Amino acid sequence: MANKDLIQGIKAKRTESFTFTIALLAFQIFMVVLYAVWVRYSNDDDRKNDPENPSSLENPVQEDVDNVYGYFRDINIMIFFGFGFLMTFLRRYGYSALGYTFVISAMVCQWSILLYGFFETVHHADKNDEYFSSNFQFTLYSMLNGLFCAGAVMISYGAILGRVTPTQMLALGIIEPMFYFLNLFIGDMVLKAVDVGGGMYIHTFGCYFGLTVAWFLTNRKTKECPDNTASYNGDLFAMAGTLFLWMMWPSFNAAIAPEGDPQFRALANTFISLTSSTMATFIVSRLLGHYGYKLDMVHVQNSSLAGGVIQGVLAHMNISPAIAITMGFIAGTISVLGYVFLTPLLQKRLNIQDTCGIHNLHGMPGFLGSIAAIIACARGINNKYLYGDDYDAIFRAGDDQARANAAATFISVGLAIVGGLITGFILKLIGRIGQLKTEEYYQDSAFWHVPSDYPKDIESGTAPVGDE
Amino acid sequence: MANKDLIQGIKAKRTESFTFTIALLAFQIFMVVLYAVWVRYSNDDDRKNDPENPSSLENPVQEDVDNVYGYFRDINIMIFFGFGFLMTFLRRYGYSALGYTFVISAMVCQWSILLYGFFETVHHADKNDEYFSSNFQFTLYSMLNGLFCAGAVMISYGAILGRVTPTQMLALGIIEPMFYFLNLFIGDMVLKAVDVGGGMYIHTFGCYFGLTVAWFLTNRKTKECPDNTASYNGDLFAMAGTLFLWMMWPSFNAAIAPEGDPQFRALANTFISLTSSTMATFIVSRLLGHYGYKLDMVHVQNSSLAGGVIQGVLAHMNISPAIAITMGFIAGTISVLGYVFLTPLLQKRLNIQDTCGIHNLHGMPGFLGSIAAIIACARGINNKYLYGDDYDAIFRAGDDQARANAAATFISVGLAIVGGLITGFILKLIGRIGQLKTEEYYQDSAFWHVPSDYPKDIESGTAPVGDE
Amino acid sequence: MANKDLIQGIKAKRTESFTFTIALLAFQIFMVVLYAVWVRYSNDDDRKNDPENPSSLENPVQEDVDNVYGYFRDINIMIFFGFGFLMTFLRRYGYSALGYTFVISAMVCQWSILLYGFFETVHHADKNDEYFSSNFQFTLYSMLNGLFCAGAVMISYGAILGRVTPTQMLALGIIEPMFYFLNLFIGDMVLKAVDVGGGMYIHTFGCYFGLTVAWFLTNRKTKECPDNTASYNGDLFAMAGTLFLWMMWPSFNAAIAPEGDPQFRALANTFISLTSSTMATFIVSRLLGHYGYKLDMVHVQNSSLAGGVIQGVLAHMNISPAIAITMGFIAGTISVLGYVFLTPLLQKRLNIQDTCGIHNLHGMPGFLGSIAAIIACARGINNKYLYGDDYDAIFRAGDDQARANAAATFISVGLAIVGGLITGFILKLIGRIGQLKTEEYYQDSAFWHVPSDYPKDIESGTAPVGDE
Repeated sequence: MANKDLIQGIKAKRTESFTFTIALLAFQIFMVVLYAVWVRYSNDDDRKNDPENPSSLENPVQEDVDNVYGYFRDINIMIFFGFGFLMTFLRRYGYSALGYTFVISAMVCQWSILLYGFFETVHHADKNDEYFSSNFQFTLYSMLNGLFCAGAVMISYGAILGRVTPTQMLALGIIEPMFYFLNLFIGDMVLKAVDVGGGMYIHTFGCYFGLTVAWFLTNRKTKECPDNTASYNGDLFAMAGTLFLWMMWPSFNAAIAPEGDPQFRALANTFISLTSSTMATFIVSRLLGHYGYKLDMVHVQNSSLAGGVIQGVLAHMNISPAIAITMGFIAGTISVLGYVFLTPLLQKRLNIQDTCGIHNLHGMPGFLGSIAAIIACARGINNKYLYGDDYDAIFRAGDDQARANAAATFISVGLAIVGGLITGFILKLIGRIGQLKTEEYYQDSAFWHVPSDYPKDIESGTAPVGDE
Repeated sequence: MANKDLIQGIKAKRTESFTFTIALLAFQIFMVVLYAVWVRYSNDDDRKNDPENPSSLENPVQEDVDNVYGYFRDINIMIFFGFGFLMTFLRRYGYSALGYTFVISAMVCQWSILLYGFFETVHHADKNDEYFSSNFQFTLYSMLNGLFCAGAVMISYGAILGRVTPTQMLALGIIEPMFYFLNLFIGDMVLKAVDVGGGMYIHTFGCYFGLTVAWFLTNRKTKECPDNTASYNGDLFAMAGTLFLWMMWPSFNAAIAPEGDPQFRALANTFISLTSSTMATFIVSRLLGHYGYKLDMVHVQNSSLAGGVIQGVLAHMNISPAIAITMGFIAGTISVLGYVFLTPLLQKRLNIQDTCGIHNLHGMPGFLGSIAAIIACARGINNKYLYGDDYDAIFRAGDDQARANAAATFISVGLAIVGGLITGFILKLIGRIGQLKTEEYYQDSAFWHVPSDYPKDIESGTAPVGDE
Repeated sequence: MANKDLIQGIKAKRTESFTFTIALLAFQIFMVVLYAVWVRYSNDDDRKNDPENPSSLENPVQEDVDNVYGYFRDINIMIFFGFGFLMTFLRRYGYSALGYTFVISAMVCQWSILLYGFFETVHHADKNDEYFSSNFQFTLYSMLNGLFCAGAVMISYGAILGRVTPTQMLALGIIEPMFYFLNLFIGDMVLKAVDVGGGMYIHTFGCYFGLTVAWFLTNRKTKECPDNTASYNGDLFAMAGTLFLWMMWPSFNAAIAPEGDPQFRALANTFISLTSSTMATFIVSRLLGHYGYKLDMVHVQNSSLAGGVIQGVLAHMNISPAIAITMGFIAGTISVLGYVFLTPLLQKRLNIQDTCGIHNLHGMPGFLGSIAAIIACARGINNKYLYGDDYDAIFRAGDDQARANAAATFISVGLAIVGGLITGFILKLIGRIGQLKTEEYYQDSAFWHVPSDYPKDIESGTAPVGDE
């Protein structure tokens, strides 16, 4: 590369860096100010004297800690370790995968607490004219919602992995949560749809949002880049992410399920469904594999998790273990089929490049699970004995539950696409700052200082320009 | 390799693949049918109205979740992440180690719930003529038993790591659980032997079962294969497995201990015993190490865990901390000695190749722990004040406890060997389908699509045939 | 290297090995004897009949298990996995980082239970002339204290990583805990200072102790060693350590917080503070990065954790979320600044080489957090309504709390330096046994058997002498 180009490149990246740091700093200051005027830690006194919903427990805050923190901890592992490592499969993108999931998820958690508080206040004000909270009580559930929203953003990130600058990631992390909580507000607070493990709000929404954004960030260069490929070592790291996601998934689907039978069923359905999606993955991956028999690591890393996604909406419902197994098996099967047939098609025909294959792991299983939940709701409404005393806690919309869920499912898809269009357009504009060059896609070295054993360039066999 | 041989090889592997997928699919369908007619989720109503053992709790299902799920989660990590990564030490077998432990453990968990239900029903029917349950109540304990059984299968897998086809693994995963639950039925349900952390049923049984199977799968080619060797990178991954096994082991031994003092002692004895087995490992590994002073990673990865194994049967007993430390120290010492002296001997004299050295980690410490438990039982019977109110909960066989445990110990070894002979014979037959060639032992590339940085062949310095 | 030198070198290492094994074995025997005569597991009867502080709970031991074991488990992960993997970033020191943290932490846990028992007995005897316990009741809190002390030792180890022999590590592990518990005795038992997450006793103490020791172990050779550098692969492993530390940190700061509001605030303040230190890290790392824009993995691995450290002393106090965010942001900022400006200065001017940069992660944030806690105490004393019923549980020294904390802060620094001087002097003497040569610093091959893919020597491009 000519010296002038090199200097030009460094200048562009410095501009990007300056934009990133100023924007992130400004956003942090903005958040501190909002927290200062608005956010307070929930405490026993306030909970007991809540004018709207006074707690009758002696120690409501500690009850939260005892009941929720264990789940919070597990989901924390899923978001930061699980998603982070799942994305380390690319041969030269490990730092970025771990680094961007880390900082953006952290930011989204902080941002979410404010957004959740905002929509909750709107919701309460709506219901009750007299009461408009002047400050927002921050509980463990707020933190949990932060992780859930970060999950949706990380899913979207999966589609555009390797094709974004840090500033673009930052914009995604700021904008997507606003749509996420708007969707949650409509689905959960207004329509009272059931969605115990985020099958609609996290997986389906996060996926179609991400795919729409990906449409703006796909071009001939990104599609032909030789570094969009896995490495042996990266695949082993990615399996650490997969396994922690797999192992913690029962917690993910059970965290906000009503206590008692529903919470147990959420754990059990999710676990048993994951076992069968894992089996389906190995079956289909071998059948359709290289040379007609070779297993593919991409499928194992992703499709084995589809059994957790498909239980997302209805894990706590009384669907029976045999149905849970069958659903998991279908999810795993469809997911591998998606990797083999649909992903290349999406890329060729629709110009939507999906780096991690989120459509196969989150999109289709999430949407299928949402549809299954509508059926399960209809069945539950007609067979109330299936739920006994827990009926009211689960069927929050009463006899309208099936309709509520149907509406929320399609609103989730619709809002995801609308939000994705807006966000994708903005991201495309932001991409002009420090524009990625062909040889900078799927490359840590574009924005990271890399050591001497950074994998060599496939084509030239050398380390990238600008490294020591 | 000649072109004809190559085509021949691919054909053989396709036959193996076809057998594997059909067998796993058939087994999955078989399980779905059995689940559909037989398995129901446990619920509060049924638990309160159980004709045999009605629960007096207000919310028995949630009590299970509160008391058991934390342990379930930890043991889940041990089985899927712990065992999976522990086996990644081989230089070219990381995909297989992670992949096969993943799918086979998932299948065993599903299968175990049925088997456990079957033997429990037999047991109840035996005790109570009037009651034969038409369906089986599936609880968190069923899921826990699934993980325990998967643990035994993974231990057996450790002995034959690198020398099996996927179809052979599948057969192991289907057959071994039947023997496992038969042994559990005899030891736990009939004899009422004490075994809080599976020292007999999981470690001792899993080891001798695996070694017997290994005897069928050892030959000159497997012994001379240059790829049966660790890599630097693989050893670091394996340490992640070791550490999670080590850190979660107290949960493993405490999960089904009676609440109160016994559960606390199970946690404490296991932890303190692990600290001393770790110290013993470093002491003996250095003394007997390369050049007379160099530490060996194999010992650190395995022998440091022996302190958890040796506490397997009696972790909840009142043995005093000093004894727990001493037991851990002995276990660590014997385990390293086993790696240095016994494993090569077993391979040379008995033709039993033990890839992971399960005899050193699970066999000897497990058997020693079983013997120690017999002594601790005898001591407890003569010193009932040691256990106070907990005596009856721990000494389920009353004054026959020592005898019951002695019987269960030897039955575990015996049934392991009988089961291993049958299974090994079957596996040897199945091995003819897609027979592994010399250069395919300890090789991911035999059944996996591998990327371009897959470690090169030691002898020829090239990537294996059939890879791109 | 000449043959004679080689034999000489092996002889020296064998002497070191002999010293190490004899010393560790002797220490283990010494501990077993002390445990045998002195340590008993806590049990329900003793707890209910404790002459000093009888428990009114029906099942006090199980209460401990239910309330503490979850935190113990998480902190166990931090010490063994978190610290172990955090230190694997060096290109040729992965085995040592994982191995020494493993064995020394295990030993420190065992040793700590004795030391904690000793100081507690002294403390009780002091208060109450009639009562001097003839044996020490070992609880889950004792085990927790073992992990905390191991944390301090691991922090100190971070400063001297790569420059010590196993025997030196052993000496550190034996000596530092004595100073640690002396400091804890003075600060916690005598002065009744507040320190919920070890901001003073673990982070500040461990750091200044380690830096003082590092002063003795820094020389021209250690400073110029080319292997004191990260590898791409090692950085990915290190991120696994970072992420588990980050995710479990709320548990670390909440484990011994009083139940109810304080425990919840400890979780919430720590989490929210970690999110902002992560954001600050990315901002400052980019601004000061290579070429003026490149992120540095060292900062991401370490400085993002500073938000947990700075909450160490006061995480459970009523400081408001906005302050927690601000503190985390300051901690992350200062930490990166430390890496960029202070660490090279300390090395050049004071001859203190700090391999992991513990001063930036633990020292400055820990000390700042200690100072912040003094201010928060003063504020709390003047605004008791901030704490309601929890005031007495938090402000153990009553109106003297600010003074108590100020004293404990400076005593922690002072005792760390005094202890570090004594220990450093001893370690320097011990370093003569099997003295490390220039090419043996930051090298696994000095004390470990390494496989054939052990990273090549940077300068000569070959594997080190003595490997096969």
